Amino acid sequence: MLRAKAGGKIILRRKAIIVSIDGLGDRPLHELGGLTPLEAATTHTFDILAGEGMVGLVDPYAPGVPCGTDVGHLCMLGYDTKEVYSGRGPIEALGAGFEIFPGDVAFRCNFATIDHNGIVRDRRAGRIREGVAELAAILNNITLNNNVIANFAPATEHRAVLVLRGAGLSPLVSDSDPGGKNEGMPIQPIRPLDESEAALKTAEALQQFLAIARGLLNQHPINLKRIMSGQLPANAILTRSGGIATKCIPLQERFNGIRCAAVSGEATVQAIAKMAGMQIVTHPGITGSYDFNGQLKASFAIELLNDNDLVLVHVKATDLAGHDGKWDSKKSIIEQIDNMVAVIKAKIPPDTLIAITADHSTPCEVGEHSGDPVPVVIWGKGVRADKQLAYGETSCSAGGLGRITGKDFFHILIDLMGFSQKLGA
Amino acid sequence: MLRAKAGGKIILRRKAIIVSIDGLGDRPLHELGGLTPLEAATTHTFDILAGEGMVGLVDPYAPGVPCGTDVGHLCMLGYDTKEVYSGRGPIEALGAGFEIFPGDVAFRCNFATIDHNGIVRDRRAGRIREGVAELAAILNNITLNNNVIANFAPATEHRAVLVLRGAGLSPLVSDSDPGGKNEGMPIQPIRPLDESEAALKTAEALQQFLAIARGLLNQHPINLKRIMSGQLPANAILTRSGGIATKCIPLQERFNGIRCAAVSGEATVQAIAKMAGMQIVTHPGITGSYDFNGQLKASFAIELLNDNDLVLVHVKATDLAGHDGKWDSKKSIIEQIDNMVAVIKAKIPPDTLIAITADHSTPCEVGEHSGDPVPVVIWGKGVRADKQLAYGETSCSAGGLGRITGKDFFHILIDLMGFSQKLGA
Repeated sequence: MLRAKAGGKIILRRKAIIVSIDGLGDRPLHELGGLTPLEAATTHTFDILAGEGMVGLVDPYAPGVPCGTDVGHLCMLGYDTKEVYSGRGPIEALGAGFEIFPGDVAFRCNFATIDHNGIVRDRRAGRIREGVAELAAILNNITLNNNVIANFAPATEHRAVLVLRGAGLSPLVSDSDPGGKNEGMPIQPIRPLDESEAALKTAEALQQFLAIARGLLNQHPINLKRIMSGQLPANAILTRSGGIATKCIPLQERFNGIRCAAVSGEATVQAIAKMAGMQIVTHPGITGSYDFNGQLKASFAIELLNDNDLVLVHVKATDLAGHDGKWDSKKSIIEQIDNMVAVIKAKIPPDTLIAITADHSTPCEVGEHSGDPVPVVIWGKGVRADKQLAYGETSCSAGGLGRITGKDFFHILIDLMGFSQKLGA
Repeated sequence: MLRAKAGGKIILRRKAIIVSIDGLGDRPLHELGGLTPLEAATTHTFDILAGEGMVGLVDPYAPGVPCGTDVGHLCMLGYDTKEVYSGRGPIEALGAGFEIFPGDVAFRCNFATIDHNGIVRDRRAGRIREGVAELAAILNNITLNNNVIANFAPATEHRAVLVLRGAGLSPLVSDSDPGGKNEGMPIQPIRPLDESEAALKTAEALQQFLAIARGLLNQHPINLKRIMSGQLPANAILTRSGGIATKCIPLQERFNGIRCAAVSGEATVQAIAKMAGMQIVTHPGITGSYDFNGQLKASFAIELLNDNDLVLVHVKATDLAGHDGKWDSKKSIIEQIDNMVAVIKAKIPPDTLIAITADHSTPCEVGEHSGDPVPVVIWGKGVRADKQLAYGETSCSAGGLGRITGKDFFHILIDLMGFSQKLGA
């Protein structure tokens, strides 16, 4: 807690940690006696936070609407995704290290193998890894018609990102990728998806880029070598998930100079943190996988709190377990995260707030993201404690926070921290 | 209760009293054993209302967003502040007795003392009181370029209000006031805050008015006399909080002819009541301060109910105590208000509804408005009683009204009163 001066007035300020447990929300499971993995897990620390704090249910975007990790995290950070999100491309571009600017249109790409007649033989070019950086380099910085510049960078394995930069572009163009289950289908021509000049111009630029790419890839020594050794050549680019980069106002600018940081081992959340202008900590020891190392994440979070007001700690493993339908694994990961939060709670400065939340539900019975709301707890000084004693989907449904949106959740936390802005006088 | 005829149909109508307890909401206080001032106060009447009625939490504007008294009250009366509120100026103009019309742009002003080089020496001209009306009069009704008329009126002490009237004006201009803690700073030039012609035109008109004002004030006998006697002259006008007057549809027009009145000792709430087309009762015995005289307010409210359907009774003192961080005083004021409501409850006609609410929270630990939701109770015939037995922040968080906005609250009350309009057929 500190009493900061703002506009000549002394105001009460508190720091906070948000623990974002990816895909945490779940549904009652027969195998767990009708409980969810969170309810079945032994979570002493979560329950202390719930008992002393206030709980509720959060619909990251809106009730019944499932979110991706990108949209879910943007919502939980108070962003209006209708304003700042039009597709996955720009998120991937940020993850691939691009600096992108409002108006840039970005696409997720695969290196793929196509036959001479344009039929997709392998959407992942034999899951190519070696030589991808070199192949991507020859596709980077190509000037297309109408002064559109194509920039291209590798992502993980056979994946890559394309960014088109120029005046008056649109993300509303179709995919060249025929889709996951359609090997044997022809590579798709790019069509504008509305009547605008921008969509037409973008479709033409993308089509031109894809033709140039095929020419350059076809004769590249890496591909010739792959063919000689019986491997599939990476002789075409498939594009999908086009999105336009928008002006995304950093949290610091939106909320009275608040300084924010994120600890995450996952590229998507790192990209969202970048969009929000947060300091990002990565380390080989913290991953976006099952071996996430909660103790190391806790240490980084505590350290970051020295120079930041708000620190987001993200754990991906619960979502992976939900996708895999592994309820037992999800339960034990939740217990590990409870231990991580115990360390955080023990080491944070006095008066620091803790919020536990999630970007969406990933119920084990579904194996995919669902629109079920996520359980949330906010704990610390100034919080109006409710009567709930446990952190779980059912107890949170009767909590003092009620049922709110992701944006509401963030605004409530920011207000408790003393960084909100009064409306009116 | 009465069964009124509307469109040939007999409908059930009830009267109602809204008690608006300014800044009522609070946070748990260590000094009160973890209770809020409302929870710690002895409030027999409130608790009877809660036990027999329904309670809930209201976010006047939206969760986590702190409101001013003006915005909070507009929201609690069902107005969309994005439509009817762009700044404090018009509210002050109404408070100063101006009749304002849609398109008028109004500013809060101070009489100030500036040096010959334009440096602000005292933002309040030595807290001038005497002669202010006379000085204001010479600044009133001045015709500026482009047929803009400047009207000027005194408010309390060194404060005043300026209204610019003309075609195509905008509130988006900067303040000439350098701000609260910035004495020694130069008076600021007026800049348009967007690219519009309206903002440019308004900035020019305002700049012209301020120059004329300096000329007229400089040589005014009152100021010459102040200088002779060693007082600071009121030789300049500082402007801030520009807002444009919009068409604000009276409650009577919005809700089937409902007749509304307000009892308040505070200028802001009186101005809001004026905007809403409510009858306003003021009396030297009822104040917007600690000595608010609840019994007198109760009498006026009962009397007003003869010729009105809805009467708003406002008490400011709780907000003052919150700003001052005086939890003990806030608690005892709440107990006085409980007594006031006891009188109201005893004397209202049968079937009259009572709603207790607030415009925003002013937690003692913060000393400012916060985004915490406010506790609300609605009591009377036709109300679906919930299980809650007390009127407090925690019990309201589990109440039958749920968590709603200020607009929702008003629409629910209006509907219970029988003045709502069916959507569809």
